[in-house]
Amino acid sequence: MKINIVIIGDEILLGQVTDINTAEIAHQTAPQGWSIGRVVTVGDNASDIENAIKEALTDADIVMTTGGLGPTKDDITKEVFCRLTGGKLYEDADALANVTTVMSARNLEVNALTRSQAMIPDTCRPIPNSCGTAPGMWFDMEDDKKVIIAMPGVPFETAAMLSKSVIPMLAEHFTPTEVNEHRTVLLTDIPESAVAERLAEWEDNLPECAHLAYLPNSGYLRLRLDVRLSDADKASSLADRLHQELMEKTADHYFDNRDLTPAQILLDLLTRNGLTVATAESCTGGNIAHQLTLIPGSSQAVKGGVVAYCNSIKERALGVSSTTLERYGAVSEPTVHEMSAGVQQLMQTSVTIATSGIAGPTGAVEGKPVGTVCIGIALPDGTVNTTTCHFPGNRRRVIERSTNTALILSVKYLRQFLAR
Amino acid sequence: MKINIVIIGDEILLGQVTDINTAEIAHQTAPQGWSIGRVVTVGDNASDIENAIKEALTDADIVMTTGGLGPTKDDITKEVFCRLTGGKLYEDADALANVTTVMSARNLEVNALTRSQAMIPDTCRPIPNSCGTAPGMWFDMEDDKKVIIAMPGVPFETAAMLSKSVIPMLAEHFTPTEVNEHRTVLLTDIPESAVAERLAEWEDNLPECAHLAYLPNSGYLRLRLDVRLSDADKASSLADRLHQELMEKTADHYFDNRDLTPAQILLDLLTRNGLTVATAESCTGGNIAHQLTLIPGSSQAVKGGVVAYCNSIKERALGVSSTTLERYGAVSEPTVHEMSAGVQQLMQTSVTIATSGIAGPTGAVEGKPVGTVCIGIALPDGTVNTTTCHFPGNRRRVIERSTNTALILSVKYLRQFLAR
Repeated sequence: MKINIVIIGDEILLGQVTDINTAEIAHQTAPQGWSIGRVVTVGDNASDIENAIKEALTDADIVMTTGGLGPTKDDITKEVFCRLTGGKLYEDADALANVTTVMSARNLEVNALTRSQAMIPDTCRPIPNSCGTAPGMWFDMEDDKKVIIAMPGVPFETAAMLSKSVIPMLAEHFTPTEVNEHRTVLLTDIPESAVAERLAEWEDNLPECAHLAYLPNSGYLRLRLDVRLSDADKASSLADRLHQELMEKTADHYFDNRDLTPAQILLDLLTRNGLTVATAESCTGGNIAHQLTLIPGSSQAVKGGVVAYCNSIKERALGVSSTTLERYGAVSEPTVHEMSAGVQQLMQTSVTIATSGIAGPTGAVEGKPVGTVCIGIALPDGTVNTTTCHFPGNRRRVIERSTNTALILSVKYLRQFLAR
Repeated sequence: MKINIVIIGDEILLGQVTDINTAEIAHQTAPQGWSIGRVVTVGDNASDIENAIKEALTDADIVMTTGGLGPTKDDITKEVFCRLTGGKLYEDADALANVTTVMSARNLEVNALTRSQAMIPDTCRPIPNSCGTAPGMWFDMEDDKKVIIAMPGVPFETAAMLSKSVIPMLAEHFTPTEVNEHRTVLLTDIPESAVAERLAEWEDNLPECAHLAYLPNSGYLRLRLDVRLSDADKASSLADRLHQELMEKTADHYFDNRDLTPAQILLDLLTRNGLTVATAESCTGGNIAHQLTLIPGSSQAVKGGVVAYCNSIKERALGVSSTTLERYGAVSEPTVHEMSAGVQQLMQTSVTIATSGIAGPTGAVEGKPVGTVCIGIALPDGTVNTTTCHFPGNRRRVIERSTNTALILSVKYLRQFLAR
């Protein structure tokens, strides 16, 4: 089953908003074995929207649109759907009831514009929106089994509508013909090109139904193996066998075989072992704690952290000695050693993660260029491992890379510790 | 000048990576008065790439592609360009020298795959890549002045290539015909629909060359006014007049008139007044500190913060009294009051921001549903303002909304304080 997506909204073309609905649609439809053929992003312009939808229909079974359903003037998508399907707008009673419920939950009144959200083409099946005022719309195209599904642009509304309504409705409408089995391998400390060279022959011999994708992340490389077959059991066992081969071929740089982020992998390791973590962050500025606490249930393992951006806080809150700071500088292994030991004492956790570095664009000193980052990891027995890295790129990239590297290192050291 | 974009990569269609190159291209080309007409995302498939580029050429002056230039097997874009332009691949000496430089800076060896990055079509002008191994490519289409520009998919490589080479090269190739003047108004505490209703008549009377876009963010609404005219002075003065009218019509919810994030606005206010800030975060888990420290130069104002995720840390690191925690609970105004006062004492800063809330999905208690968030702001004179909010949505959304709301509130309270 092939899905083409049409993303509607000037805000995307203006660069004010980044489209994350495509990724959400991909995540939610992949388990069904459906795939995304093409994504077209157009502005809030009736003829662009109409052309994009017509063109998307030519070679897909399902066309999904997001955006263009809000109450403001730049939202003209519903009229396009009327024209495409020969429909007329009417006020849907259920949709209006939902508008009233959602608005009153937000302590807001229903005005004429909000009320207009309940106006939908009479050629659609309305799709309930549990998180917002604009209903989704399902259009059956008369001449074939093709379907157009219009969803709002607000990502959490789209995500909820997909899982609660759209995916179940589609699973009923289309009998699945193929399953897509995914397998993941995460590697560290090896560039994409070196992996590709090593796997070249193996990839050449992959069966037609299998595909390997290289997905470089900040600080690690994700390999994704997809196997598409009509027979679910065959797909699963072939994927297992190829996955095993892939892990063997990359064993020296192997980190994990799950489709998880480094923060998720650390949190899972901590939780399964009844351990806790705290952070002492300088250059990462709170991002390590943020990545960990984004995960539901993180409060089981995360006790807290200190963002020690200036030296006086490193001394006062974490007990880093002024002698260490003077002799070795804030960006040094002795400093992150004391930071991780200090936060371990303060927060009484099994593991701590400390960072200090130069994220740039300024701050470089003799022998320590922008991108120099020291990381310290304290383990349950109080031992501390420290390391110094050099990361390329701008400020955001150095922060991201430092965050992931610190999380990956803490997993590696903790696994070694637990294996002793 | 109209730009169509073709984004190439299975990883986007698989939902593993979100495209942020479109936003970067939009940001860098808008000042020239150029606009993005359409974005098409296709997988690593030669005929899809070829069709998308051909189609993009039909109604744009410039086609920009990103992605598909890496060394691995799924990168087949260069061969498509050869076919499109009648070219042949050759090894470019400058590109090879750059590959060697970039790899040795990363302490990596040049293998056959990396070396293949220097192979480019002889029909292109190579564009230097200062951050990576894959050169960009400029293709002049023979029959007209149209240009295809191929860039790598890695966002920081694309961003650098655009600003250092592509934009200057395009500015020389095309004489600008129109300027695009942008103006911004940020509003708080008013839903999009209420603003739209209030502005409906004003918008109807806007001249053809002016356009207003509604860009809702988590915790605030961004209005973006665009004026496109060939005469730069006229565009600027019309934009100024309309901007003034817009600010007057929304004065009661007005927050700022710059295209900045709440974190940037707070940091600017602090820096201009020689003030400092620290955070005490529970439910936001470090994200407020992270948003502030992402900004270059933030170390001038940000001293640090405490992520006090569990109650014992609130007591031990921030001096919150156990009586307060027992009597009112961790998610309460008395608790965030003591958190903000405690971190102010610890970090000795002018301003502090404290949060405690229930981000979900679990953790709700009687009278405090998921989404309940208390915020405390301490000011330079030691006074503390506290407030309780109720935010809809999932965990990530509650964290984002709490972060922005806390930043916006600290700006508002600090402005009032400074105006006294």
